[in-house]
This record gives sequence, structure tokens and C-alpha cells, in this order.
Amino acid sequence: MIPVQYVELVGSVAGCLTTLAFLPQVLRVWRTKSVRDISLLTYIALTCGVFLWFLYGLGVGSYPIITANGITFVLSLSILVMKLRYARR
Amino acid sequence: MIPVQYVELVGSVAGCLTTLAFLPQVLRVWRTKSVRDISLLTYIALTCGVFLWFLYGLGVGSYPIITANGITFVLSLSILVMKLRYARR
Repeated sequence: MIPVQYVELVGSVAGCLTTLAFLPQVLRVWRTKSVRDISLLTYIALTCGVFLWFLYGLGVGSYPIITANGITFVLSLSILVMKLRYARR
Repeated sequence: MIPVQYVELVGSVAGCLTTLAFLPQVLRVWRTKSVRDISLLTYIALTCGVFLWFLYGLGVGSYPIITANGITFVLSLSILVMKLRYARR
């Protein structure tokens, strides 16, 4: 389906996109302080999930998994903390 | 760090959490029709990213990558479509 020489490139672009995807959401919530439409359960599950992926990366010794999920963990945790904080307003 | 026999279990739980994380967000937006706090750019990047992960999974022949990213693609695309649709209101 994809020529074999492009498979790793596709994986790398995929990794960059899914890792950095949450940055605009962090910046939006940071700017607006509005979190009503953000699902708490989504960011609890996502934060726990990427933390476990991070541990999995350590377990299998994969630097791409460690790096991508380490960054996503920080972004997802930021959204979760702001959701909890600004929801009280 | 993690005993080796638990590494695959940690990966499986991680995969379930990050795959199903977006279901509550889909349901919330579906119910409220309110998308103001949702970042458009986040869901454009996420939807493209998981679609590329899906293609990567096909390329390397990995059923867990195909399944997890196939499900996340449907959920992320649903949020993206509702964001575009309800933002016009």
C-alpha cells in the first residue's frame, strides 16, 4: 500500500502530528481560561494513558516512544490541571 | 524499572486508555453541541496524525496499531466534524 521506503517517514510525521496536536489546545485554554466544553474524563484517560506509554517506552528502551509520550504527557497534564482549576470559577 | 513480564500489559492498558480517551469528548460535544473551547487545530493535527499512524500500521503489518488508530481516527474525525458544524451557530 505504501512503498516500504516511505513507511518510517509516515511514522515520523504521524508521531510529530499526534505529539504536537495538543499544543494549540493548551494555548487556547491558557488564553481563554474557559474549559466548559473540554471533557474531564478524556484528559484523565489521556494523561494516564500517555504516562503508561512513557513507562512502556522505558520498558522496551524505545527513545521515540519515550520522547513523544513524555511531551504529550506534559501537554495533556497541563490541560487537565487547567480544566480542574478553571472549572471552579 | 518495570518487571519485563508486565511491559506488554502496561502497553496494552496504555493503548486502551489513549484509544478510548476521546469517546467522552465525542459524547460531550454531541450532547451539548457546544464547541467553543475545543481547539480546531488540535483536532485537525490529531485526525491527520492518527490517519498516518493507521497507514504506518498497514505498512508494518501491525494489527494493534491499525485497530487503535482506526478507532481513534473515527472519534477524532467526529469531534472535528462537530467542531466545524457547531462553530457556525
